[in-house]
Amino acid sequence: MADSKPLRTLDGDPVAVEALLQDVFGIVVDEAILKGTSASEKVCEWKEPEELKQLLDLELQSQGESREQILERCRTVIHYSVKTGHPRFFNQLFSGLDPHALAGRIITESLNTSQYTYEIAPVFVLMEEEVLKKLRALVGWNSGDGVFCPGGSISNMYAMNLARFQRYPDCKQRGLRALPPLALFTSKECHYSITKGAAFLGLGTDSVRVVKADERGRMIPEDLERQIILAEAEGSVPFLVSATSGTTVLGAFDPLDAIADVCQRHGLWFHVDAAWGGSVLLSRTHRHLLDGIQRADSVAWNPHKLLAAGLQCSALLLRDTSNLLKRCHGSQASYLFQQDKFYDVALDTGDKVVQCGRRVDCLKLWLMWKAQGGQGLERRIDQAFALTRYLVEEIKKREGFELVMEVAPVLKERMVKKGTMMIGYQPHGTRANFFRMVVANPILAQADIDFLLGELELLGQDL
Amino acid sequence: MADSKPLRTLDGDPVAVEALLQDVFGIVVDEAILKGTSASEKVCEWKEPEELKQLLDLELQSQGESREQILERCRTVIHYSVKTGHPRFFNQLFSGLDPHALAGRIITESLNTSQYTYEIAPVFVLMEEEVLKKLRALVGWNSGDGVFCPGGSISNMYAMNLARFQRYPDCKQRGLRALPPLALFTSKECHYSITKGAAFLGLGTDSVRVVKADERGRMIPEDLERQIILAEAEGSVPFLVSATSGTTVLGAFDPLDAIADVCQRHGLWFHVDAAWGGSVLLSRTHRHLLDGIQRADSVAWNPHKLLAAGLQCSALLLRDTSNLLKRCHGSQASYLFQQDKFYDVALDTGDKVVQCGRRVDCLKLWLMWKAQGGQGLERRIDQAFALTRYLVEEIKKREGFELVMEVAPVLKERMVKKGTMMIGYQPHGTRANFFRMVVANPILAQADIDFLLGELELLGQDL
Repeated sequence: MADSKPLRTLDGDPVAVEALLQDVFGIVVDEAILKGTSASEKVCEWKEPEELKQLLDLELQSQGESREQILERCRTVIHYSVKTGHPRFFNQLFSGLDPHALAGRIITESLNTSQYTYEIAPVFVLMEEEVLKKLRALVGWNSGDGVFCPGGSISNMYAMNLARFQRYPDCKQRGLRALPPLALFTSKECHYSITKGAAFLGLGTDSVRVVKADERGRMIPEDLERQIILAEAEGSVPFLVSATSGTTVLGAFDPLDAIADVCQRHGLWFHVDAAWGGSVLLSRTHRHLLDGIQRADSVAWNPHKLLAAGLQCSALLLRDTSNLLKRCHGSQASYLFQQDKFYDVALDTGDKVVQCGRRVDCLKLWLMWKAQGGQGLERRIDQAFALTRYLVEEIKKREGFELVMEVAPVLKERMVKKGTMMIGYQPHGTRANFFRMVVANPILAQADIDFLLGELELLGQDL
Repeated sequence: MADSKPLRTLDGDPVAVEALLQDVFGIVVDEAILKGTSASEKVCEWKEPEELKQLLDLELQSQGESREQILERCRTVIHYSVKTGHPRFFNQLFSGLDPHALAGRIITESLNTSQYTYEIAPVFVLMEEEVLKKLRALVGWNSGDGVFCPGGSISNMYAMNLARFQRYPDCKQRGLRALPPLALFTSKECHYSITKGAAFLGLGTDSVRVVKADERGRMIPEDLERQIILAEAEGSVPFLVSATSGTTVLGAFDPLDAIADVCQRHGLWFHVDAAWGGSVLLSRTHRHLLDGIQRADSVAWNPHKLLAAGLQCSALLLRDTSNLLKRCHGSQASYLFQQDKFYDVALDTGDKVVQCGRRVDCLKLWLMWKAQGGQGLERRIDQAFALTRYLVEEIKKREGFELVMEVAPVLKERMVKKGTMMIGYQPHGTRANFFRMVVANPILAQADIDFLLGELELLGQDL
C-alpha cells in the first residue's frame, strides 16, 4: 500500500456513528439491562467451551463485516454472557447493576481519557480528589492521600511497597538486596493477593507470616504478637501487618483496635484490606465492625463490590500527608509531567502510581453517590445485612440445610446448566465444600432469598 | 436503622432504569460523540481548578438528587472534559473515537464481569484467547501465551517478573535477597515504566543499565553489549533487555534483530515494549520497522494507542508454551479456582495475573476488528504514516517552523485556553521544549494537518 498520498478519512461519518451506537444501545438495554436483571430470565446460558466457540465465531479476519452482522454479534455476546446484575447471581463479591453507576461508566468510556494530568482530565482529577476525601472521612481521617488502583490486589501491593519505602527509602534505588530480610503479617483468612504481592514485589512468599484466626475467621491479635516476636528472633525485620475487614470466604472482620495496639507497640505499618467490608463504613448501624480502622496507615476499599459501582473501582487510602505516594512511585517523566506548565502541577497525579495511563474510576461512584446520597447507600448496606439475617433464620427453619455435605460441586453444575442461579462454593479448613452466599445486589428482596432456598432444595432433592 | 426486618427493595424499577439510561445516552451522543468529534467545537473548555471546582459542585452529600439534577451533572461533566476523540487532539499517544470499539466498551460495562474464570466470563475467556492468538500471529508466533494487563507499564513489569522467575524460580518464594544482584538493560529513550517497574519489583532503579541511543532515538546494539559486559564485570547478573518499538518522545524503533543477536549471545530474556509501535505490525508496508520482533521472549502492545481501541487495552504476549505465566503468578486460591469444577479448569485464566478481579479488555478490540477487518485497521496505520509524511513536508515549506525555540509552553497555554487544539511538548536531551505531534486519530485528514500548522502560526505570530 503506497503511502505517498494520504487516503481520504475512512471514519468520521457522525450520522452513521450515531445510528450504530443507537442500535447497540437498544440491544444493551433490552438484552443486558432489562432481561439481564429479570428474575424470569436465566442467569447464564451455559455452553461447553467447544460449542460456545462455534456459536461465537471468534476468528478475526481480513475483511470487515456489515452493520447487521456486527449488531448480531453484539446480541450473541450478551446472550451467552453471565448476567452479574441478575437477582440470582450470588457468585462473586460483586453483583447488581446500579443505573447511575452504569451511566457514569458509559460517560467515562465515551470520554476515554487518562487520569494522569489536570491538562487532559481536569474534571476527573478534581473529582477523584473529592471522592477520596469522602472515603477518607468515612475511615475517620480529615487529611491524607490516596489513589484509585486497578483492583484490590494492586491496592494491597501499593500498601506493601509504601510501607517498605517509608522504612527504607533506599529500597527504591538500591533494591531489596540492600535491606535486611523483611517480614509482613496477615491472617490465614487473608486474600491471596497478599501472597501474590509479596512474590511480585520481590519480597518472596516466605516473607508472609501467617497469623492464626479464630473459628469465625478473625485474626487473633495475641498470635500476631507471637509471630512478630518469632520473626524478629529469626533475624527478620517486621514492617507491615495487613488486617482484613470482610474476609473473602467467611466475611470476617478482624479486630482492628487490638491489631492497631500491636502495630503501635512494634512500630509497624498497619494496613487494612477492606476491599469487601469497607463499604460497611457507610452504615451507622454496622460500621462498628471496623472500629479502629482510623488507626490504620493505609486502607484498600473496593466500591465495586458491596456498593455495585462497577468493575473496577478500588481505592487505596492513606493517612500520610508527606507526599509518600509520589516520593515512592514518582519518576518525574519530563514528557508528561512538565514542571513549566501554566497551572499548579500538584494537580498532575499521575506520578503517584506505577501505571502511566490510568482509567477514570471515580465518575461511576461519584454519580451514583450524587443520585443515591449517603443515605441511600447506607440503606443498601443495611438491607444487605437484613437479608443476610433473614437467610440465616430461614436456613435454620429448613431441614437438610444444617449439614455441610459434599454436594456443592454437584449442585453448582446443576444450577449453572439450568441457568437459574449462581453461587460460589469452596472448602475451608476441615470443612468440606460449602456455598458462600454473597448478599450485595441492591435489587435483592426476601422473595429472592426464598427462591434461592427452594431452588437449592429442588436441585438437591435426589442427593 | 433497625435491621431485623428487610426493607423492600429500593432499586429494580426497570422502566425508570431504562428511561434514565436513554436520557444519559442521548446526552453522551450529542455532547461527547457528535460535538466531541466535531472540528467546529472546542477540544477543551479550559477553566482554572478553583473555578472548575465551583462549576462542578463535587461534594458528596447525604441526600440524593433528582433525575433532572443528575442529567444536568452528566452534561456538565462532559462539557468540561477534554475531547480526546476530537480531530485537533494530538496530546497523547491515544486519540480518536472508534464507534465499534466504543460499542464494545458499552457492552462490557453493561455486563460488568471479571475475566478470571470461564464460569463467569465464558464468552470473554474464549475471546481473549482468540484475540491474543491473532496478536501473536502478527508478531510471528504460532503458539505462546499472553494476557491483557491494566496498561503498558504493568505489561512491562510482568515481563521483568517473568524473566527473573524463569532464571531463578526460587525468587517467588525466597525473594530477591536469595539471588545475586540482577541487571536489566534498556535505552535512554525507553518509557519511564521500566525504571518504575524495577523499583516496584524490588530490584531497585540502580539495576536498570541505560544503553546509548543514536540521534534518532534508536538503541545502539554495540553499546548494549558493552553495558552487559560492564555489568558482569561489576558482579551483576544480566537477565533482561527491554527494547522499544515506538519510543515515547521520538517514536523511534530500536533495531530488534541486532538486539536479539546480543540477547542470544548472552542468554538474556528479550522483551519488546511495543506499546506504541506494535500496531504497525498490521501494516504490510511499515511492519519492517519491527523486523526481529519474532525473536522476542515477550512483547507489550497497547491497541488502545494507535488502534484507538479505548483505555485500557494492553496485551502482554509471550513466546512461552510452558505455562510460565501461571507458574510465576499463580497462587491456586481454592475459593476461586476450584479444581473439582465441571469444566476444564485450564480455562480459568485468573491465576496468570497478579490481579484478582480483572476487567474485560478484549471485546472492544475484537468488535472493532470484526467491523473493520484487518484490512481496515491496516489502512488506518498507513493513513497515519501518510499524514505524518504530509506534515513533515508542509513544515519544511513554512518559514519559522525550522527552529525548535523556547515557545512551546506559551503556545500550549494559548491553544488550551482558546480550546482549538492540544499537542504535547517536552524537552529532549540538549533540545529545548518542542511539540510532539502524535498522528493516530482515524478521523484525521489533510485539512486537520493544515489547520494545525496555520493555528500554530497564528498562536505564535507575536513571539
